[in-house]
Amino acid sequence: MNENNSPYLLNAWYVAALSKELDGQALFKRTLLDTPVVFYRKADNCPVALLDRCPHRFAPLSMGHRDGDDIVCPYHGLKFDCSGKCNHNPHGPGTISPRAIVRSFPLLERYGFIWIWMGSGPADESTLPDYSELVSGHRNSVGYTYMPRPCHYELISDNVMDLSHVDHLHGEIITTRGNLSPMMPNVVESQGEVAVRWEWEQTPPIMIFNDFLPTPGEVARHFVEVTWSAPAHLLLVIGATQDESVDELNYENTTAQYDFHTSTPESKDRTHYFFATRRNHNEEDAEFNEVKLQGMHDAFDFEDGPMLDAVHLQMGTDDFFSLNPIFISSDAGPVRVRKMLKKMIESEREGAETA
Amino acid sequence: MNENNSPYLLNAWYVAALSKELDGQALFKRTLLDTPVVFYRKADNCPVALLDRCPHRFAPLSMGHRDGDDIVCPYHGLKFDCSGKCNHNPHGPGTISPRAIVRSFPLLERYGFIWIWMGSGPADESTLPDYSELVSGHRNSVGYTYMPRPCHYELISDNVMDLSHVDHLHGEIITTRGNLSPMMPNVVESQGEVAVRWEWEQTPPIMIFNDFLPTPGEVARHFVEVTWSAPAHLLLVIGATQDESVDELNYENTTAQYDFHTSTPESKDRTHYFFATRRNHNEEDAEFNEVKLQGMHDAFDFEDGPMLDAVHLQMGTDDFFSLNPIFISSDAGPVRVRKMLKKMIESEREGAETA
Amino acid sequence: MNENNSPYLLNAWYVAALSKELDGQALFKRTLLDTPVVFYRKADNCPVALLDRCPHRFAPLSMGHRDGDDIVCPYHGLKFDCSGKCNHNPHGPGTISPRAIVRSFPLLERYGFIWIWMGSGPADESTLPDYSELVSGHRNSVGYTYMPRPCHYELISDNVMDLSHVDHLHGEIITTRGNLSPMMPNVVESQGEVAVRWEWEQTPPIMIFNDFLPTPGEVARHFVEVTWSAPAHLLLVIGATQDESVDELNYENTTAQYDFHTSTPESKDRTHYFFATRRNHNEEDAEFNEVKLQGMHDAFDFEDGPMLDAVHLQMGTDDFFSLNPIFISSDAGPVRVRKMLKKMIESEREGAETA
Repeated sequence: MNENNSPYLLNAWYVAALSKELDGQALFKRTLLDTPVVFYRKADNCPVALLDRCPHRFAPLSMGHRDGDDIVCPYHGLKFDCSGKCNHNPHGPGTISPRAIVRSFPLLERYGFIWIWMGSGPADESTLPDYSELVSGHRNSVGYTYMPRPCHYELISDNVMDLSHVDHLHGEIITTRGNLSPMMPNVVESQGEVAVRWEWEQTPPIMIFNDFLPTPGEVARHFVEVTWSAPAHLLLVIGATQDESVDELNYENTTAQYDFHTSTPESKDRTHYFFATRRNHNEEDAEFNEVKLQGMHDAFDFEDGPMLDAVHLQMGTDDFFSLNPIFISSDAGPVRVRKMLKKMIESEREGAETA
Repeated sequence: MNENNSPYLLNAWYVAALSKELDGQALFKRTLLDTPVVFYRKADNCPVALLDRCPHRFAPLSMGHRDGDDIVCPYHGLKFDCSGKCNHNPHGPGTISPRAIVRSFPLLERYGFIWIWMGSGPADESTLPDYSELVSGHRNSVGYTYMPRPCHYELISDNVMDLSHVDHLHGEIITTRGNLSPMMPNVVESQGEVAVRWEWEQTPPIMIFNDFLPTPGEVARHFVEVTWSAPAHLLLVIGATQDESVDELNYENTTAQYDFHTSTPESKDRTHYFFATRRNHNEEDAEFNEVKLQGMHDAFDFEDGPMLDAVHLQMGTDDFFSLNPIFISSDAGPVRVRKMLKKMIESEREGAETA
Repeated sequence: MNENNSPYLLNAWYVAALSKELDGQALFKRTLLDTPVVFYRKADNCPVALLDRCPHRFAPLSMGHRDGDDIVCPYHGLKFDCSGKCNHNPHGPGTISPRAIVRSFPLLERYGFIWIWMGSGPADESTLPDYSELVSGHRNSVGYTYMPRPCHYELISDNVMDLSHVDHLHGEIITTRGNLSPMMPNVVESQGEVAVRWEWEQTPPIMIFNDFLPTPGEVARHFVEVTWSAPAHLLLVIGATQDESVDELNYENTTAQYDFHTSTPESKDRTHYFFATRRNHNEEDAEFNEVKLQGMHDAFDFEDGPMLDAVHLQMGTDDFFSLNPIFISSDAGPVRVRKMLKKMIESEREGAETA
């Protein structure tokens, strides 16, 4: 994988795993951007990511074992430190080739996720958006899950940026009762971000909030705002209120939740979809937290997911625009996202060529 | 799929489904000639076929639902009439793009089948052969079935055009006891058709007719005639008689059956094989009708089918002649068919290029 | 398959099957070097190998049946003698095309194996190495097995030529307790052969010999020598002794076994791995013979095999050197083997081009 011919944006942070997926001493493997990666935590709990491929005979290091903070190749016992440098060769005189280095990948652990930087440029922490809201409340007010899917990752970004599909695809739990489709979403494009926002009234209120409003079943004002950051991070804030004194609706002044959706390509045909949801009501209820995550799985596993898989197969290409799609009003957001990402990838490639 | 580069003959009628497969209100999907198609019946029972792919986000319409005679896309609710024209966009101002059209395919419902025309030329009813004999008798004298198979469709045409294989491949029920192979079939090539015919004596008569002849187990004169029409329609008439006064053997003057075999490519590696059989004896016996269809399945599922699959895999190409096969006398029919079809496809392509 | 573009060495003997796999009257099929082959034994027990593909309609002859020493095509009844020549055509006048010939492959039956020659050059018996030691002892002192594997065949040669992996990959039964890796193997390259040899002391002795030495658990001198011959034959002799008077360790003067490993490519992604093992101790113990074969399966099926599969997938190419591997001392043997084989294949291709 290098910037010259990668179909992906490489100099960017992707979610590699949920924090809780890297557990204890175990080696954890996952293919990201067509690249096999092995993860583990050092004794100090700090996560490490190395190319999952010994430079000697190409054995997956994830089939090997730990030796303290080092990792030992399962096939011939070459040992690598957590920067990827070979520090022990048990063979013959034990000479270590200067090329005996496994690529290591910069990681950050933030907001309940392990973030990885797979580009050759310097890992730039400042480009990681701030999702600290996720971890700023009671531990039972936030939940995390992982949902792999056999479709292109941009289809998932499209799906979340265009919430008008909720009117048509989803069942009772999150239905917006046809209210979103007729509206023109407000779209704001800024440096490296695209945001879409809808506001509407609904009776009864959306089911996820109905029971937490003062008068369930009665009309409530709603808003939802989705903000995309490259490559495929989507912050979705949704809330409802029956308080007429509230002016501009936001997470703080409504019964609301703060959802983070992100997609990391495994390949052009498979996606690691990660999800976290935090709410500002009923925060300490652990059982309710589980119910909410189950609801996300019900919606994604049985409604969005099969649709995205089918669309992926029908498209037969990752070049969306080459299929000459027709557009509807709710495409304003996702199409801007696709264009911005395309431009960023092309710009990265050109940079690589002139470098 | 367009005529310039299609490996198939497009301006022709193919069987898309058995009439009984399009049942009630349900949406029915099938991929034909590499093209996904959704079928349904209007309130007036007339069948409709549309490209199974929304022009907006490429969702399969077959995952959607009916709204009267219209069909609604499952993902964003665009609605299309049965000509494929979008007639409702629930988004924003509801503007309908002039490009919001799904391709529709001309259909005919005849002889117990749904026939589809997938070319860009005008659907020409006059090119549909007359198989009305299928539906001109008692309803228990005719049976239909569908047998998909992982092989190229022309291998099925070869198989039916060259009945000498029956001597070698098939078991007791339809064995011709080695009588066909030694004969030179009579081959007649006419405008768009190739017919092969064998006549022979056999003792005992072929099992499917034996019990219906005046003196079962005694010698009988037999004939079988297969007539191919493009692209892959095969009418097979077979009969036996012990009446020496009969001069030229045909369906009317023998104990006989009238079989229709046709293959529609799903892709170059998979075929939809449809079959109908009608007989002129024991016509009202519904149970016997089932036995006959079961016999077809026994022969095709366990004898022809596995052989055609194996041949398909061994060939590894759809260019039969490039493999430089040797020919035997019974190839006279199938080779003429292959050459005629090849010529028709090439001629269609050239027409498309000059058009 | 011809020499101009084959990725394989063709003018060489490969193992096609264990002798015991060709049993009685049955037809046996196996794909070797991307080529489907059907095998059977004539009435005189002599094995025959023919291309498993009728030249008429490409049906696999292995789906057909025997007629004495001839084989009959299952689809149209063409009959071929065991040299591959068609000797009966039941169709029409029965003319036999001079092209109605199935390719036959020279075979040898030696040492408990069926060997096949797939090149166009004359089958040269003199190039078959002598493994007669396998069959020169009690019948319970030798065992045979077959272990197909989804990896490139050269990975298996690498694995056996580089025994230092035993220190790292294998469990208690055959562990060399870290003794092999630190040594430089002695490598001898001669005409068409590469041999590697290690000698070392180990306490306790390697488990497979420990119980047969005078003082189990005490130190013993060990040796192992592996000799490769093209294309992928590996003779591995391993022994241990506690007799200090023994000078040069070999199969005769130690408690030893004589193992033959060979790999025949099915394709570039699948390998037929054959194995035979003979020992010079406890020779009449049939049960122990089974235990030894089971031990080989345990090691290969659960330790080497999954590693080789993983390496194969990680490599994603059969061009090992293009991946720019680093080398360690134990690569001396396998790398010489890869280079010698590459040269032989290239030389065969050049010969084919100038021929």
